[in-house]
Amino acid sequence: MHEFDLINNYFQKLSKKSPSSLNLNDDVFFDKKNKLVVSVDTYTEGNHFIDFKKPELVIKKIIRSSISDLVCKGVHPKYYFISGSGNKKSFSKSNLLKISKSLNQEQNKYKIFLSGGDTVFSNKLSFTITTVGFANQIIYRNKAKINDDIYVSGNLGDSYVGLLILQNKIKLNNVLNNYFIDQYFMPNIQSKLTKHLIKFANSSIDISDGLLADLDKMINTQNLSYKINLKSIPVSNKLKKLLNLKKLSKINFISNGDDYQILFTASKNKRRIIERISSNYRIKITQIGSIESLDKKPSIIDDKNRAIGLKNKGYFHQF
Amino acid sequence: MHEFDLINNYFQKLSKKSPSSLNLNDDVFFDKKNKLVVSVDTYTEGNHFIDFKKPELVIKKIIRSSISDLVCKGVHPKYYFISGSGNKKSFSKSNLLKISKSLNQEQNKYKIFLSGGDTVFSNKLSFTITTVGFANQIIYRNKAKINDDIYVSGNLGDSYVGLLILQNKIKLNNVLNNYFIDQYFMPNIQSKLTKHLIKFANSSIDISDGLLADLDKMINTQNLSYKINLKSIPVSNKLKKLLNLKKLSKINFISNGDDYQILFTASKNKRRIIERISSNYRIKITQIGSIESLDKKPSIIDDKNRAIGLKNKGYFHQF
Repeated sequence: MHEFDLINNYFQKLSKKSPSSLNLNDDVFFDKKNKLVVSVDTYTEGNHFIDFKKPELVIKKIIRSSISDLVCKGVHPKYYFISGSGNKKSFSKSNLLKISKSLNQEQNKYKIFLSGGDTVFSNKLSFTITTVGFANQIIYRNKAKINDDIYVSGNLGDSYVGLLILQNKIKLNNVLNNYFIDQYFMPNIQSKLTKHLIKFANSSIDISDGLLADLDKMINTQNLSYKINLKSIPVSNKLKKLLNLKKLSKINFISNGDDYQILFTASKNKRRIIERISSNYRIKITQIGSIESLDKKPSIIDDKNRAIGLKNKGYFHQF
Repeated sequence: MHEFDLINNYFQKLSKKSPSSLNLNDDVFFDKKNKLVVSVDTYTEGNHFIDFKKPELVIKKIIRSSISDLVCKGVHPKYYFISGSGNKKSFSKSNLLKISKSLNQEQNKYKIFLSGGDTVFSNKLSFTITTVGFANQIIYRNKAKINDDIYVSGNLGDSYVGLLILQNKIKLNNVLNNYFIDQYFMPNIQSKLTKHLIKFANSSIDISDGLLADLDKMINTQNLSYKINLKSIPVSNKLKKLLNLKKLSKINFISNGDDYQILFTASKNKRRIIERISSNYRIKITQIGSIESLDKKPSIIDDKNRAIGLKNKGYFHQF
């Protein structure tokens, strides 16, 4: 059962009683009156990260993945709380030193502050991160409009190649190995874009499960469809070369998740401001398609203008 | 290694960089400017709860233990977030139904609102609860003054007897079994006392690890000592009878944790207001001792006015 099904079925009702909350069908909780934004995420070894051989990298990925929930909603994350469950080996002095050094680097990079948490004993390693920010308004899911352009920040797919390398499914030279693994552990969170998003985005989400899975989630209560141009989906030069060299299909590399880029929609009349902000602040923003009415099937168009069938829309955390 | 040692050694530094936070040496995070209070706690099966045979009771204990962190600081908890890690069996439909029913009851009882969270797969069952409230001020740890009276709300020890019954270490008749087990799973959180605490308490903490362990934690950065009168420590009539009947020593039953009562100190000139609030609102509040200067050893005085030695000051979550 998918995590959102679980939540929807059993807990949606409880959250509806709240005087000022979002329902649970969004990535963050927003209390407009108190301007409070909260996100809570749990990461377990073997599921959200492969192992704990590199705690200094795992912890960075976890932190970035967590703050991404707020960043994609137009909210600057301010405080974070860590609850770690693990055994003596996971929380050895040497590992704790590495973890706290990495946290310090992330704090400086993203201007966030460790504000609490706890550590408990468990043979299964997991972390729950609570992220808190303040905002007058946020960008919601399910607010896309027909004919909206669909945009994505940064590049997609690098993180997935990093994962394949870590799983020994792809072998590349050292330079490329390091590049892609770094992209997997340290995705390039678009925190510079955060404060501008509210000026043009109608709806937004971060790409954690995969471009198409998250696109579906972004509009999951709306009677809307979409058209995506495969050619437009931004990938890094290194991934482009890799695809050419190994004759791999782009479609298999751009919707596998862990990108932590921002997916958003905006009206066509926002094109100029989006271009300006992209250029002024040097943030890569690419238009990849458009929101369509429901009488058109969701589709991805290849460079020969054919619709591509998709078996797997992305990665779900499965029970 | 104790959880607070872990936190102190490696993460204290990181939290000090925050512009407006408490350091990590308290139960809650307080951002005075934004009036925000946050607490994060993790509970694992086999450590914080024995098993998941009664999910409807376990979840109540977890929620009450979590909101207790805010309640004891004089803060009304408003929102809570649940992250559950578990397997298909733990999160079966039947268990989810029981959990959501219990959560609904707790929401109504304490006026709190489920505001988010997630569920992930893990063979080890654990829950992380984030609790959020709003307050202009809170009651801190380490603000006790010499000669302060020491008070405790409610009764101590019932929860521990419930635990002993669940562990098959004590056998009682059905009525008593049910009473003590209920006290273990559903401690009587003093939410009515919350809004009054700020009027008289200098320092406060909730009793989760045990009276003496938490008393030590409440003044752990202060050069202070304490004197506690064993006779004054409040226990229920049922526990009193049990101690008499089985010829058990009171001292072994009043500092074992899981009470979730409020331990606080107040100046002697607050005695009258404390008595008045206790009587007006029918909240049991008992003076059990006083804060002393450090030249006196911390002591518990028995009814023959002798100091009692203690081997074990309470329960710690151990690595």
